[in-house]
Amino acid sequence: MYLNEKKVPEVVIKRLPRYYRYLDELDKEGKTRISSTALSKKMGVTASQIRQDFNYFGGFGQQGYGYNIQYLLEELKKLLGIDNGYKTIIVGAGNLGSAIANYAGLKKRGFKVLGIFDNDEKKIGTTVGGVEIYDVSGAGRFVKENKIDIAILTLPKNETENIADMLAESGIKGFWNFSNAELKSINSVFVENVHLTDSLMTLSFKINQNEE
Amino acid sequence: MYLNEKKVPEVVIKRLPRYYRYLDELDKEGKTRISSTALSKKMGVTASQIRQDFNYFGGFGQQGYGYNIQYLLEELKKLLGIDNGYKTIIVGAGNLGSAIANYAGLKKRGFKVLGIFDNDEKKIGTTVGGVEIYDVSGAGRFVKENKIDIAILTLPKNETENIADMLAESGIKGFWNFSNAELKSINSVFVENVHLTDSLMTLSFKINQNEE
Repeated sequence: MYLNEKKVPEVVIKRLPRYYRYLDELDKEGKTRISSTALSKKMGVTASQIRQDFNYFGGFGQQGYGYNIQYLLEELKKLLGIDNGYKTIIVGAGNLGSAIANYAGLKKRGFKVLGIFDNDEKKIGTTVGGVEIYDVSGAGRFVKENKIDIAILTLPKNETENIADMLAESGIKGFWNFSNAELKSINSVFVENVHLTDSLMTLSFKINQNEE
Repeated sequence: MYLNEKKVPEVVIKRLPRYYRYLDELDKEGKTRISSTALSKKMGVTASQIRQDFNYFGGFGQQGYGYNIQYLLEELKKLLGIDNGYKTIIVGAGNLGSAIANYAGLKKRGFKVLGIFDNDEKKIGTTVGGVEIYDVSGAGRFVKENKIDIAILTLPKNETENIADMLAESGIKGFWNFSNAELKSINSVFVENVHLTDSLMTLSFKINQNEE
């Protein structure tokens, strides 16, 4: 509904989860309002940038009087699809896949993990984080039958593209991709490629510069 | 040496690992030069933004003729401290800690994992990814004696702050923090807080908007 008016730039989309996290924190501290200056400090962007960001979605409340935290949180929840109850599967039952299956942050944001898929016969039939591990050969059918929204890919690079193609044909809507394979969003299948080491490089840059 | 002239904005620092990844890909494909237009397409920022970014570090070569990929890679390596051989430890030998210990991307960028620390007696003395698991009570001493640069924190939120304080006193230079505890950079101890679900939220936003 919002996108019809103006296309939201990627950089703005990427700030939305951070707004959500910060406001959620403030809400938990019992705060009810935040000035645009205070929010701007927390976010590390200017107050005018925040207004511009929020204008993509209708503005989110009065300037000058600051923002109503709970209202903002509710709007962000709707935008981010938190509480939509999106259904996910994890493909790859290695350490990273298991870590994600056990990760409470997913449930807290309303995401459900309905199955984990792997080709290791020793793992198939066991459970991780209360979720059963199935044979990867059945993943496409599982996605179709259970109307899975998102596949979390934690398998080796060389296996990722074939599986992704197969799941896309089975009606998946998005990939949260942790493999090194750089997947591209096609048609209505969206992709977020996670590059874990990017933030390690950022850290390394700062340490390195500080030593020079 | 570069920072003396102008402070590099956080948003520019965050783009450096992406420049590195894209150029490394092109280098592996055997390419030797890239035009600023082509690089700008790959990065999703304007060519003028790229010039501005690079100007923080002396410019990196001629406009018009495009950029020399190998030269750019070498400069980025120096900036990012890749090949500095930074020494790391992992604190928390759970699934995520184990996934990182096994992650080839760390070694590829010159980072060494010298030890993993945990308080689970069943794990202490065993190895993960060829690295020994030690008792967490010895982590401070280990950091001092081995001049560890970076601690990778993959332990529960409520244990993270105490451990981080202790390691900071032991001379650690940076934290790559996967816990939910929001650590802050203090003095010369730098922090990158990793918020895994941010990119899942970005994905979820796109799916959600597409359905409306």
